[in-house]
Amino acid sequence: MGNGETHKPVVGQVTVVGTGLLGASIGLGLRKAGFAGRVVGVGRRRETIDRAVKLGCFEAATTNLEAAVADARGTGQGQLNLIVLATPLGAFAELLEQLGKLDLAGAVVTDVGSTKQQVCDAAARLLPEPRRFVGSHPMAGGEQQGPQAAKADLFAGKPCIVTAADNAEDEAANAARWLWRLLQMRTVHMPAAMHDRLVAQVSHLPHAAAVLLVELASRDVGLDIASTGFRDTTRVASGDPDLWVDIFSSNREAMIEAVNELATALDQFKQMLVSDDRGGMQTLLERVRTAREQWLRNVEVDHSGSYE
Amino acid sequence: MGNGETHKPVVGQVTVVGTGLLGASIGLGLRKAGFAGRVVGVGRRRETIDRAVKLGCFEAATTNLEAAVADARGTGQGQLNLIVLATPLGAFAELLEQLGKLDLAGAVVTDVGSTKQQVCDAAARLLPEPRRFVGSHPMAGGEQQGPQAAKADLFAGKPCIVTAADNAEDEAANAARWLWRLLQMRTVHMPAAMHDRLVAQVSHLPHAAAVLLVELASRDVGLDIASTGFRDTTRVASGDPDLWVDIFSSNREAMIEAVNELATALDQFKQMLVSDDRGGMQTLLERVRTAREQWLRNVEVDHSGSYE
Repeated sequence: MGNGETHKPVVGQVTVVGTGLLGASIGLGLRKAGFAGRVVGVGRRRETIDRAVKLGCFEAATTNLEAAVADARGTGQGQLNLIVLATPLGAFAELLEQLGKLDLAGAVVTDVGSTKQQVCDAAARLLPEPRRFVGSHPMAGGEQQGPQAAKADLFAGKPCIVTAADNAEDEAANAARWLWRLLQMRTVHMPAAMHDRLVAQVSHLPHAAAVLLVELASRDVGLDIASTGFRDTTRVASGDPDLWVDIFSSNREAMIEAVNELATALDQFKQMLVSDDRGGMQTLLERVRTAREQWLRNVEVDHSGSYE
Repeated sequence: MGNGETHKPVVGQVTVVGTGLLGASIGLGLRKAGFAGRVVGVGRRRETIDRAVKLGCFEAATTNLEAAVADARGTGQGQLNLIVLATPLGAFAELLEQLGKLDLAGAVVTDVGSTKQQVCDAAARLLPEPRRFVGSHPMAGGEQQGPQAAKADLFAGKPCIVTAADNAEDEAANAARWLWRLLQMRTVHMPAAMHDRLVAQVSHLPHAAAVLLVELASRDVGLDIASTGFRDTTRVASGDPDLWVDIFSSNREAMIEAVNELATALDQFKQMLVSDDRGGMQTLLERVRTAREQWLRNVEVDHSGSYE
């Protein structure tokens, strides 16, 4: 997990494509961090981007991706430009195709998607300089949507995974790291496939489990007696369906693997119930409590690092 | 779900057996509610019961169950006495056996256990007046243990299930309902078997799922990138292992059923992943979000009631 000090890029413009919760929070966060360059938002709906500018998320916003990219080309000599795809996953392929037809003038491109292999593959295929792309997954969000839910500290203290292909330029990875560190995230570097496997375990599978638990409980009258434990355990199941269909679909392979693992673990747990194996349950519950408490202590400290 | 006004019992003494988080919170809550009778704690360890009295949870506390029960016999004519078993589930059988040998002088007995069929069966077998027993499950708690974690409003606004056998005396059910209503709970009446099936769905299965999700994630390095979603989804997995082994073991039958249902649902979800059935996922996620939001709105209103 070596993580030496890296050269800090001088960034002229950050172009944020997508002005929803994440994109707008990047804008607010950069302003709060004292970023001296320009932050420009690109959105599809005039109303949303106007609201985002009014809320102070962006200096300027446009519905025209090409115009925003052309603007960025006007920044000073020796300055780096950064383009961040902050739309839902489902729009990435089309956006990368559009970007592939524009003169990006060496801009570094990254994204905020919850899965990484698919977007990395698409970038390699569609961008003219794929070595200046790195994937990012800032692990922050919320059930509320739109720029009005944006917060300058949405990302603070949370992990961001950066996935660079083997042939990615250092400058690209450094630019992405610069962005997320400025937003006070702890960055963790790993290959895209490893990211997708791990987030299936700690995010996508827990999400699916929460959904299925609500589904089962709502078939009966159980919800009438459900309490705070159920509320917390299933909080994520109130998330945006569109967003999550995209996530599940784009991480199908790792999800199928994770679902299989949970099915096996469930079956082993059932065997403990069948044989009333109190000792086995006790061992499992104690091991899990220890692992969870250890984890909670660990996330208090910065453990930025690399698995590459 | 008819729930007419019921005769309010005049209670002389509430004897709380078990002076941990739940028992001590009952004491604090009764005091806060202005209960004019005596609240006596019975615990195993001198140190714990002394601490509970010092914290104002009980007027008096003793390690001697027989003495506490004898005390209660001294309360005024026409007053009802209530005994609440607030120890871990695993101690119920022994306690009921002890109570079965004492002169309870018509006291109503109830409990706070997270499963109900087992304790109801034991009460029917062991108590001299089983018709004066009803089961209770106040759905409140916390990860912290002991009287020092007790709160007067621990129960407020949460559901309490009351399970009375067909032949239980009305006075017993009324006394239990009086207690939980005084602690500001909404009471729901249903048979013990129905309770056990429903709590398996909304509490015990979600708990097991949280445990297994932590178990799977901690086998790999996934916890390094786990974030707030994972923290909330698995919060309950930090619960007391002893308590939960008791719960799982005493609700084995309903749990096996619930685990089977989750396994089936997981397999159906996997099939959606395999065939990239985005429409099916969308329908599921939307149905679940609607059901959950509806539930969150419902728990704002009092829907005390009965499924008997």
